[in-house]
Amino acid sequence: MRTRAAIAVQAGKPLEIHEVNLEGPRAGEVLVEIMATGICHTDEFTLSGADPEGLFPAILGHEGAGVVREVGAGVTSVKPGDHVIPLYTPECRQCASCLSGKTNLCTSIRATQGQGLMPDGTSRFSTLDGDPILHYMGCSTFSNFTVLPEVAVAKIREDAPFDKVCYIGCGVTTGVGAVINTAKVEIGAKAVVFGLGGIGLNVIQGLRLAGADMIIGVDLNNEKKEWGERFGMTHFINPSEIGQDLVPYIVNLTKTPFDQIGGADYTFDCTGNVKVMRDALECAHRGWGVSVVIGVAPAGAEISTRPFQLVTGRVWKGSAFGGARGRTDVPKIVDWYMDGKIEIDPMITHKLKLDEINKGFDLMHAGESIRSVVIY
Amino acid sequence: MRTRAAIAVQAGKPLEIHEVNLEGPRAGEVLVEIMATGICHTDEFTLSGADPEGLFPAILGHEGAGVVREVGAGVTSVKPGDHVIPLYTPECRQCASCLSGKTNLCTSIRATQGQGLMPDGTSRFSTLDGDPILHYMGCSTFSNFTVLPEVAVAKIREDAPFDKVCYIGCGVTTGVGAVINTAKVEIGAKAVVFGLGGIGLNVIQGLRLAGADMIIGVDLNNEKKEWGERFGMTHFINPSEIGQDLVPYIVNLTKTPFDQIGGADYTFDCTGNVKVMRDALECAHRGWGVSVVIGVAPAGAEISTRPFQLVTGRVWKGSAFGGARGRTDVPKIVDWYMDGKIEIDPMITHKLKLDEINKGFDLMHAGESIRSVVIY
Repeated sequence: MRTRAAIAVQAGKPLEIHEVNLEGPRAGEVLVEIMATGICHTDEFTLSGADPEGLFPAILGHEGAGVVREVGAGVTSVKPGDHVIPLYTPECRQCASCLSGKTNLCTSIRATQGQGLMPDGTSRFSTLDGDPILHYMGCSTFSNFTVLPEVAVAKIREDAPFDKVCYIGCGVTTGVGAVINTAKVEIGAKAVVFGLGGIGLNVIQGLRLAGADMIIGVDLNNEKKEWGERFGMTHFINPSEIGQDLVPYIVNLTKTPFDQIGGADYTFDCTGNVKVMRDALECAHRGWGVSVVIGVAPAGAEISTRPFQLVTGRVWKGSAFGGARGRTDVPKIVDWYMDGKIEIDPMITHKLKLDEINKGFDLMHAGESIRSVVIY
Repeated sequence: MRTRAAIAVQAGKPLEIHEVNLEGPRAGEVLVEIMATGICHTDEFTLSGADPEGLFPAILGHEGAGVVREVGAGVTSVKPGDHVIPLYTPECRQCASCLSGKTNLCTSIRATQGQGLMPDGTSRFSTLDGDPILHYMGCSTFSNFTVLPEVAVAKIREDAPFDKVCYIGCGVTTGVGAVINTAKVEIGAKAVVFGLGGIGLNVIQGLRLAGADMIIGVDLNNEKKEWGERFGMTHFINPSEIGQDLVPYIVNLTKTPFDQIGGADYTFDCTGNVKVMRDALECAHRGWGVSVVIGVAPAGAEISTRPFQLVTGRVWKGSAFGGARGRTDVPKIVDWYMDGKIEIDPMITHKLKLDEINKGFDLMHAGESIRSVVIY
């Protein structure tokens, strides 16, 4: 079949909208009509050329929602007509990682996915001239139709609006999940969120959902104060305006008459800046503070600290896709949205047509959008 | 009263054995007759001058066992005649740290302890000329008699031999506790221990106690192979003899037919070398591997890694005094020794008199001892 798609022809160039060929699903695969897709910083990271593992030409996009239109041989968990969210972190429920019960990082299709290919080592996309086009993060939601492995789709309820729940395919789950699955924040906790973009705001609403007492947001842009407060932030810090180092400032802010040590129970880096990651660790509470790295750092960048920070009880960890097992947890997060436990609508600041997709990247660069969504 | 003690007069000089004055216990303090004390690398770290927080003159030693001889006003938890182990990590059961239930790092007397003083800001030790001598780590077990805060003594059973259980005052608890309290290793785990000295061997026997399947020891000294095996090590690696990088070597060693990712469930740094700490993190299993820093790094040294290591599920943490709450957990570890669950006797390689204490440091430098114990 043919489908319209935005093609990343090469690094640093705008996406090009073309008709492309799409082969039907092979065994264990499903054809999905994408109804809506968010534009995420990770798409931009790859498109810009900064991603050392970026491959071209490819069809980017990994934050979508749609409808199954056809299934390949052996597919049993979904059928045509089912509403689904594509999963860049699949959940095969068979591999050593899935069965460990300790991680969401399914490894069943990792090698081929990283090469922009389906699990059998081939691509379903090609130009009208027959030249192959690569998949991206196993999703390629910047195409109106795409083919996905069965283990990489989460079946969701049919009353959920595509143009909102597509955001659960990455940003919402990454932020909310980091709080709930990775940090396991408890009621009454004190937390700090560094970077109040599309991920940070979802961390904030995850903290509100988890019942945190103190939700401190840190951003260099004062316009983010209102955004943070809208989702539950209780304190805002602009590090450029406090006139002192950020770590002791936060430590002091979190002291109580009983606890004169101070420090946050949980901190989250949503910036990808390795210096910020260090601050996030070091303002965590002596003895038990947990710092979670969510942001993606530039190629080759390293985090560092004195080991004394760890020996005195701080824990440094990370989160990918919010620690969520996609097929199991994503439908629950859709329920939370439909039940009003979490918000999405105000974060979808811009709606675009596929032809306007490059405008979504422009809005991101200009810092004007929280999330732009392309509606097919 | 007067007591004999080994005095650290200044950095880099041998200890000097002298009679010193010791004031009796004030309110909330106890006088303890030290019967035996181990000589630990931390004593050496301070004596050498490498410890930026080292203060002189002081009476070092923090790994002792003895008998309460007198108690100050208000002391209720111990009485004269009780057998005790001094605690450089106290347990007040009243401070924000103790009551958090999340850490053993009691902060009740931290400020004065770090200054070599008792909680009221004074020292009980002085020269016969009346010049003050500082306490060390709140213990000063290199003195035949010492004064300790009540919150810094663990009452133990009276049939436990002082010349063995003194080692529980630091090395044993640090190693075994890092496995049980900090990492919470489960039956069947795969683990790697870097550095097979007095701490590393205790990590190994902690792993045996916890039921680990694979206990890999790493040391540059082949003589440590026999030592490791004696306490439960299943595999030995000398990194200088494998002809390849250590991390992929360990990852391969831990692969199974089902788990082709590889990596250790738990790794422990017992070297204090920040490069080794990085290896320890990076050979931990993708998705869930936990790396625990135990070793004390040189002043100013920093650990570093790519944040991707954390985002893909590895956890970096640390352990001080094995995460043990001293008054609560140390008596249990004494029981474990008395019940044969853990071994101590073979690790006490040298017994010395106080007059020979400098020989204990020489043996440590020469790598000839696992633990030297001074018996008063």
